[in-house]
Amino acid sequence: MSNRAFNFCAGPAALPTAVLQRAQAEMLDWHGKGLSVMEMSHRSDDYVAIAEKAEQDLRDLLSIPSNYKVLFLQGGASQQFAEIPLNLLPENGTADYIETGIWSKKAIEEARRFGNVNVAASAKAYDYLAIPGQNDWKLTSNAAYVHYASNETIGGLQFDWVPQTGDVPLVVDMSSDILSRPIDVSQFGLIYAGAQKNIGPSGLVVVIVREDLLGHARSSCPTMLDYKVSADNGSMYNTPATYSWYLSGLVFEWLKEQGGVEAMEQRNRAKKDRLYGFIDSSEFYTNPISVNARSWMNVPFRLADERLDKAFLAGADARGLLNLKGHRSVGGMRASIYNALGLDAVEALVAYMAEFEKEHG
Amino acid sequence: MSNRAFNFCAGPAALPTAVLQRAQAEMLDWHGKGLSVMEMSHRSDDYVAIAEKAEQDLRDLLSIPSNYKVLFLQGGASQQFAEIPLNLLPENGTADYIETGIWSKKAIEEARRFGNVNVAASAKAYDYLAIPGQNDWKLTSNAAYVHYASNETIGGLQFDWVPQTGDVPLVVDMSSDILSRPIDVSQFGLIYAGAQKNIGPSGLVVVIVREDLLGHARSSCPTMLDYKVSADNGSMYNTPATYSWYLSGLVFEWLKEQGGVEAMEQRNRAKKDRLYGFIDSSEFYTNPISVNARSWMNVPFRLADERLDKAFLAGADARGLLNLKGHRSVGGMRASIYNALGLDAVEALVAYMAEFEKEHG
Repeated sequence: MSNRAFNFCAGPAALPTAVLQRAQAEMLDWHGKGLSVMEMSHRSDDYVAIAEKAEQDLRDLLSIPSNYKVLFLQGGASQQFAEIPLNLLPENGTADYIETGIWSKKAIEEARRFGNVNVAASAKAYDYLAIPGQNDWKLTSNAAYVHYASNETIGGLQFDWVPQTGDVPLVVDMSSDILSRPIDVSQFGLIYAGAQKNIGPSGLVVVIVREDLLGHARSSCPTMLDYKVSADNGSMYNTPATYSWYLSGLVFEWLKEQGGVEAMEQRNRAKKDRLYGFIDSSEFYTNPISVNARSWMNVPFRLADERLDKAFLAGADARGLLNLKGHRSVGGMRASIYNALGLDAVEALVAYMAEFEKEHG
Repeated sequence: MSNRAFNFCAGPAALPTAVLQRAQAEMLDWHGKGLSVMEMSHRSDDYVAIAEKAEQDLRDLLSIPSNYKVLFLQGGASQQFAEIPLNLLPENGTADYIETGIWSKKAIEEARRFGNVNVAASAKAYDYLAIPGQNDWKLTSNAAYVHYASNETIGGLQFDWVPQTGDVPLVVDMSSDILSRPIDVSQFGLIYAGAQKNIGPSGLVVVIVREDLLGHARSSCPTMLDYKVSADNGSMYNTPATYSWYLSGLVFEWLKEQGGVEAMEQRNRAKKDRLYGFIDSSEFYTNPISVNARSWMNVPFRLADERLDKAFLAGADARGLLNLKGHRSVGGMRASIYNALGLDAVEALVAYMAEFEKEHG
């Protein structure tokens, strides 16, 4: 029996143990075929069936309408920061961006290299502790699209609402909260998500794009970055990240077995209620984000005295509570509690936090 | 004990069984740390050590000089087809390309989207059965670089010599023969290779680039495609394909244990001598490539009567000799015999071929 720790890493993040066990069992000999999934031609019948099942399961989980393509690409969200303007922003058009933290800021910086960007709203006015309401946004009337990040992994700031942009396509970086609760895909023009939080291993990025947004790439767009080329080739214009795609498929199967995103919403709500509830009830731990903008996935918190941080982390490590150190730009602690972590992980964390507080508080 | 077939797939290709066994053993709990490599932060000490060891082992295997950077990127060779001109071809410069088959042709088509391309030589004149000698190349005097593919995976055509381009940087697609025998890296400006043949799983591409070629990317180059950004960030500008990088590291370790690329050269020479020797001695099987341009890695061959192809493939499958069907653009058969396959695989194939010939010849 292997010794599995509770891994609160922000990403690459914990995967369900059941998924890793299945991957382990199939590693050398998939379904008696005498080879690993890693060793299969991406054009083989077996692999195509694996890939198609993964896509269908994702479609089922998110009720993705048939006029959306699902792409399994490479380069992570950071490559999408360029791909989105290269595909959706005409040379003399304007794109609106909402800035709520480090990742949406990176998206803005990259988009600026390709055209006009209007930062229609920024959480800076609230010291990144709250999200400006849409009434305060300065949207461009004929923007090519509106871009935002539904969850800021580093700051721990999450939208609990979906912006309404009428006919202007809404583009969302959902890297760190996709599949954590139900969404209405039809509200979006394009959804993208790096796999390494709620989907699978790093090196894969999933793009869900409305078909009418395909076919507008600039002539200067590399072929590999043209969504239409990927869509027309079933994400196999060249060899895709086959093993990561397969593992993501195992995660999707696992999610369905757990009861889908509806069940995940309940479970994630219980997890975040328990952790924020404990933090708020304590005089020792704090999380300053306004309540309706608190992330369900990434919970940053501080100890009353930052000189205790090191001891806190060492004690956590010793108990198999891993990767609780906050991002270097923020400091303090951060517990990332994605789908793969259950309430038991949060209970173990809370028990340790209470114990540490009793000892040092 | 698992039932491992002999997998002659052109890519994603067979990996060493010992590597898969180790990955399997470490899947849920790497070195007693309670988590999978897939679940580690790419910034963690443990993962950085894994990544650095992989790079050092590759440097050792190929004796890569210290003025070369080694990058672990995403998007495969096809994305490199764009990255190379975006980084190395000035807007009004010219790049020379040598065309020896389908992959070098794809590189040419993509490069043409970004500037002037001179096809300095083409194997078309020889029906892709031989490689034009450098005396017949029409090189541009001040080319930004000269590009060629050292091995054409589909046609089975391989250079057994390295072009001499003086001060003009030599750029090579080594996707399907890297690490198969020693090379002198200092003869090249840039070497790139999709991982899924001789390195590791798909979704990773290795780039070995001389430092003076960094820092010349066009302003229109996406940040993720700028070699200098990747080099300055140790291939971690964003989250890399961590698990594929780790597996590649296991392959590099295995290669060192086997005796390095010198041992691979001996083994690969024995394999290709056995297979081509058998084909040439037979009246039933043919390979038309001129002897000095025959690929050591991909051996296409035809049966005397193509109506027997189906029976040949069915019989091979039944004996655990997998993926021998030739590329759809070529037809016939193709045996890819990369590093992970030993002489035993070739002997098993030859025995079957002899048996099939006796029955149907």
